[in-house]
Amino acid sequence: MTHVYDDPATFKDDVLVGFAAAYPGHVQRVPEASGFVRAGGPLEGKVSTVFGGGSGHYPSYSGVVGTGFADGAVLGDLFASPSAEQVYRVCRAADGGAGVVMGFGNYAGDRLNFKVAADRLVAEGIDTRIVYVTDDIASAGADKVGERRGIAGTFTVYKVAGAAAEAGLDLDGVERVMRLANARTFSFGVAFDGCTMPGADEPLFHVEPGRMDFGLGIHGEPGITSDDWMPAPALAAKLVETVLAERPADADGRAAVLLNGLGATKYEELFALFGPVHRLLVEAGVTLVQPEVGELVTSLDMAGCSLSVTWLDDELETYWTAPADTPAFRRGAAVANNRFTERREVRAAGEDDAVPEASEESRTAGRVAQRAVAALSASVEEHKEELGRLDSVAGDGDHGIGMSRGALAATEAADRAAGAGGGAQTVLAAAGAAFGDKAGGTSGILWGLLLSQMGTELGNDDAVDGPRLAAAVTTSAERLQEFSKASLGDKTMLDALFPFVEALRQGVDAGRPLADAWGDAARAATDAAQETASLTPRIGRARPLAERSVGTPDPGAVSLGLIVTAVGEVLAGPGA
Amino acid sequence: MTHVYDDPATFKDDVLVGFAAAYPGHVQRVPEASGFVRAGGPLEGKVSTVFGGGSGHYPSYSGVVGTGFADGAVLGDLFASPSAEQVYRVCRAADGGAGVVMGFGNYAGDRLNFKVAADRLVAEGIDTRIVYVTDDIASAGADKVGERRGIAGTFTVYKVAGAAAEAGLDLDGVERVMRLANARTFSFGVAFDGCTMPGADEPLFHVEPGRMDFGLGIHGEPGITSDDWMPAPALAAKLVETVLAERPADADGRAAVLLNGLGATKYEELFALFGPVHRLLVEAGVTLVQPEVGELVTSLDMAGCSLSVTWLDDELETYWTAPADTPAFRRGAAVANNRFTERREVRAAGEDDAVPEASEESRTAGRVAQRAVAALSASVEEHKEELGRLDSVAGDGDHGIGMSRGALAATEAADRAAGAGGGAQTVLAAAGAAFGDKAGGTSGILWGLLLSQMGTELGNDDAVDGPRLAAAVTTSAERLQEFSKASLGDKTMLDALFPFVEALRQGVDAGRPLADAWGDAARAATDAAQETASLTPRIGRARPLAERSVGTPDPGAVSLGLIVTAVGEVLAGPGA
Repeated sequence: MTHVYDDPATFKDDVLVGFAAAYPGHVQRVPEASGFVRAGGPLEGKVSTVFGGGSGHYPSYSGVVGTGFADGAVLGDLFASPSAEQVYRVCRAADGGAGVVMGFGNYAGDRLNFKVAADRLVAEGIDTRIVYVTDDIASAGADKVGERRGIAGTFTVYKVAGAAAEAGLDLDGVERVMRLANARTFSFGVAFDGCTMPGADEPLFHVEPGRMDFGLGIHGEPGITSDDWMPAPALAAKLVETVLAERPADADGRAAVLLNGLGATKYEELFALFGPVHRLLVEAGVTLVQPEVGELVTSLDMAGCSLSVTWLDDELETYWTAPADTPAFRRGAAVANNRFTERREVRAAGEDDAVPEASEESRTAGRVAQRAVAALSASVEEHKEELGRLDSVAGDGDHGIGMSRGALAATEAADRAAGAGGGAQTVLAAAGAAFGDKAGGTSGILWGLLLSQMGTELGNDDAVDGPRLAAAVTTSAERLQEFSKASLGDKTMLDALFPFVEALRQGVDAGRPLADAWGDAARAATDAAQETASLTPRIGRARPLAERSVGTPDPGAVSLGLIVTAVGEVLAGPGA
Repeated sequence: MTHVYDDPATFKDDVLVGFAAAYPGHVQRVPEASGFVRAGGPLEGKVSTVFGGGSGHYPSYSGVVGTGFADGAVLGDLFASPSAEQVYRVCRAADGGAGVVMGFGNYAGDRLNFKVAADRLVAEGIDTRIVYVTDDIASAGADKVGERRGIAGTFTVYKVAGAAAEAGLDLDGVERVMRLANARTFSFGVAFDGCTMPGADEPLFHVEPGRMDFGLGIHGEPGITSDDWMPAPALAAKLVETVLAERPADADGRAAVLLNGLGATKYEELFALFGPVHRLLVEAGVTLVQPEVGELVTSLDMAGCSLSVTWLDDELETYWTAPADTPAFRRGAAVANNRFTERREVRAAGEDDAVPEASEESRTAGRVAQRAVAALSASVEEHKEELGRLDSVAGDGDHGIGMSRGALAATEAADRAAGAGGGAQTVLAAAGAAFGDKAGGTSGILWGLLLSQMGTELGNDDAVDGPRLAAAVTTSAERLQEFSKASLGDKTMLDALFPFVEALRQGVDAGRPLADAWGDAARAATDAAQETASLTPRIGRARPLAERSVGTPDPGAVSLGLIVTAVGEVLAGPGA
C-alpha cells in the first residue's frame, strides 16, 4: 500500500524534487527534465553512462548516479518509460564529449523512446550506443534471450558499465563490456504480493495466500508459475537451480551475486534466504565476489525477491569490484576521478520557438489540425477511466492517465503553434512532440511519432484534400510500423490503425467525400479494436501478463478508435 | 507480511548466518554469540562501540559494523533484548583494551540486560559505559526526556559515537560525545500499518484504513494519536513542527536530518515527503548537513516513517560527516584506520565447567531444585500459547515463546548441574544463567536473576527448610526489585511476586508446613496476577501501548503465578 503522496498525478515530480534536495552532494537535476546528472556535471573526455526507465525502482536509477556508476539517470512515470524528449535532454546534459552509452531494461516503451532519443543525439553529433538488459530467465526461453525482460540484473550490468567508463574505456569499449556483462547475467525471482500505485486502493495483483508466484516482473507484473509456500531452504534451492541451469560453459565460477528485495520483503528475510543460497552456490563451485543483499531494484512495496548471478571474468570482476560513490550505493574508497579533471557545463536542451513560414492553405489546414487535436483530447478525457480499467487487466492501469496527459499537452502545443500562424506541419509537429514528451510510455512515443510524421507528410505549403490526407496517413502508419516492428508484438494500437488506413484509402480512392470516408474508416478501427480481445495473448510490457489479457481489448487499440472517431467529427463539421 | 523464513523459532539465527555469509569483508560472527565484530577484529588501544537491541531493525545494528561506525553489534530475537550473556560475549570480543561504550534504545529489557553485562565486564577489568538513546518525542513529555524510547535517532547517535571512537577519543570522550548527540536528537514518526512476525498470520496491529497513527514505535507498537490520512505536504508540516518544537536554545541551525522508512513505506514515498520536509526545515532556518533518506532503522515490513533531527555543533558535525565503511552505510572515502594498527584476537567468552563442591544436604536440595525447574518448564510449555495471546494484546506476542525457550534451557542446565553433583546454588545458578541467555528480553533477565539469586541465598552447604527457603525467596525478590526499579514501571511480574513472597513468609512464620504455605502463596500470586488487569495502564516495552493493555492481565505476572504453582506441586510431592 502506498501511503505517502500528495497528488498522484505529480508523484514522480514530487519524488524528483525530494531526491534532489536530499543528495545535492551527489546529483543535480537536469534543467526542465525528469532526470539527474552528477553534481559536478559531466567529465570532459569521459564516456557517459545514462540509465533509465520508469520510476518506482529506487535506488534504481537515480540512486546510483555518481563516481564509478551512472553519469545520468532518466525517469519516466511510475513503471512507464521516460519520453524520448526526456531521455534526449538527460543524455545531452550528461555527455562529456566522448559519447553516451544508454542502458535500460528490455521493455517496448523504453526501446522505442531511447531509440528515438539516440537517433536525435547521433544527428547532433553525440555518438550514442544502446544496450538493453535481458537478465530475466522466466520471461523467455534460452533460445530467445533477446526477448527477455530486464529485472534486478540491470544493477550489476550498469555497475560494470559505469566502472568501465570511469576507468577510461572508449565508447566501443564501454559498450562491449556492458554487452558482455548482460550476456553473462541471469536472474530469477519470486513474488509474494503486488504493489499499490499511489492513490489506488488495491494492489496491481494479489498472490493467493499460501502461494508463491515464480518469474515476477518489476512493474507489478505477477509471476508465470505458481507454487505452494515453501520454507526458505526450499525456496533457495529453487532459485539457485533455475539460475545455475544457464551457467555459461566458459564460466570459471566467479560470480557477482545479488539477492534483491522488491520492497516489502525485508532485510531479515533476505538474509534468512541468503544463508541457504550462499551454501548451495558454494556447493555448486561458485565463488561469490562481493555479493549484495538488499533493495537494489525495487517495485514500490511489492513483496518478493530475486536472485541474480553475473558470471565474471577478470575484466568484469575488476569493474564489479571497482569503487563507487552514489547516493544509495557506495563501494570501496571512491575518490574523485583524476583521469578526467575538466568539467563540462550541464547543457539544457536547446529550444527553437521560431514558427516556420506557411502558405495560407496550410495555415487553414493547421487550424483544422488544431481542432482535431482538441477533439481527440476531449474524447480521451471523456474515456480516461474506461481506458484505465482496460489497461489494469494486464497492465498498470495508467493508459488513460498517460493518454490524457499527452493529449492535453498536445492540445496546448497545437493551440500555440496555430495561434502563431503555423501550417499543418508545424501544428502537428508541435502536437506530436508534446504528446510524446508528456504521455511517456509506449503509447506516448507512438502517438507522438504518428502526429509528427503526419505533419512531415502534409508540409507547410500545400492545401490538404482527401487523397493527400489519406496518403499522409498511410505513409505515417507504415513508418510507425517500420519503427516499432522490432519492439512490439502483434496486439497493439497498430491492429486498429491498419484497418483504419485501409478503409480510408478505399473510400478516398472510390471518390467519396473525405468526411464520409473518414467516418467509415473510424468505424472500421473501432471494430478492429474490439477484435483485439481475442484468444491470442497480447504483448504488453510483460509477456507473463499475456494470459490475463485474453478477452479484453487492447487499450491502445481502443483509444485509437476513439481518437479517429473524434477527428472524424471535426472533419465532418464546419470549416473543415 | 513476512513470507521468507524456515522455522520461525530459528529465524534470528538464520538471519545471522546469512548476514555473515554476505559480508565477510566487513564483519565476523562472535563465536557462540548472536552478534558481530569487525572482520579484522578489535583495534588495540581504540575505544570500542557496541550497539544492540532486538532483531528486525536492519540495517540497525549489524549492518553498521565497520570502520567509522560500530565495533560490534549484538542482536536479540525479533524486537526482544539480547540476553546479558550475549551482550557480554560481544563486548568482550569487541574490546580493544581501551574500554567499551554500549548503546541501545531505552527499553526496559535492554536496560536490564546491558546493565548486567556491563557490571560483569567491569568486574573483569573492561571499563564499560552505558548510553541509551531517548529520541522519541512521542513517548514522554519534554520534562521526562529520560523516559523516552529510542527510535530512528539511534542511527545518528551511534554514527557520531562510532566516529568519535575512530578518531581516537578516550572512553570518557566517546561517552561524552554520545550523550551530547543523544541530548540533541529528536524524532517523531507516523505509522500506516503494522508488521507481521515470521509465521504469524496477522500484523501486530492495524491502522484503520484512511487513518494515520502518530508516535509510532519500532517494535510494532502502534501510535499514540490518530488522525485522518493527509497528503504529503501536510504530513511533512506535522512532523517538522513537532520536531522543531524541541529545538534547543543554543542550536545554531545546523542539523543531521534523517527521514527513516520503517520497511514498507518505500523510497519514492520518502522522497515525495522529503521535498516539503526539506523546504519547511530550510524556511525555519535549518541547515541540513548530509541528510539521509532511506531505511536506517526498520521494523520488519511495518509501514510508516519518522523524522529525526540532531542539532549539530562543530564537534558533532565533524563526527556526523566523518567517513564510514559498513555493510549497509558508507560515507566518504573510509580508509583503514592508521591511528590504531595492531589487531587483537577476537576473544570468546571463557567457560568454566568445574562443579563446585556441595554438602550432601545441599545436593538433595539441588535435586529438588532440578525437579522444580523441570516442573516450571512443563507448566510454561503447557500455557505457552495462552501467554503469547496475553502478550499480543499490547506487546509482540513473544512472551510465551521466550519463556518456553528460557525454561527449556534452564531445565537442561539444571539437569546437567544436578547430575554432576551440584548443590542448590550450583543448580539454580546454572538454571538462571541458561534462562536469562535463551529467553532474552525483560522476562529472561528477571527470571535469570531470580533463579541465580535464590541459589546464592541457599548456597551449596546447608540443608533447605521452610524458613530458609522463605528467607531466600524474600531476599531474592527484594534484590530483583532493587535491580529493576530504575527501569520498570508498576505492572510487571513483580506485582505477582510480592504478594507471593508476603504470603509465603506469613505461612512459614505461622509454622505451617512448607508445601502448604507455598501452595497458599501460589494462589495469592495467581490472584494478584489477574488483578494486574486493572484500569491502570501497564508499562510494557512502550508507553503508547498502555491504553490497549487495560483489562488484560500482565503476561509476566500470569507466568509467575503458573510457575510458583508448578513448583508448589513439586514441594508437595514425594522427596521434597
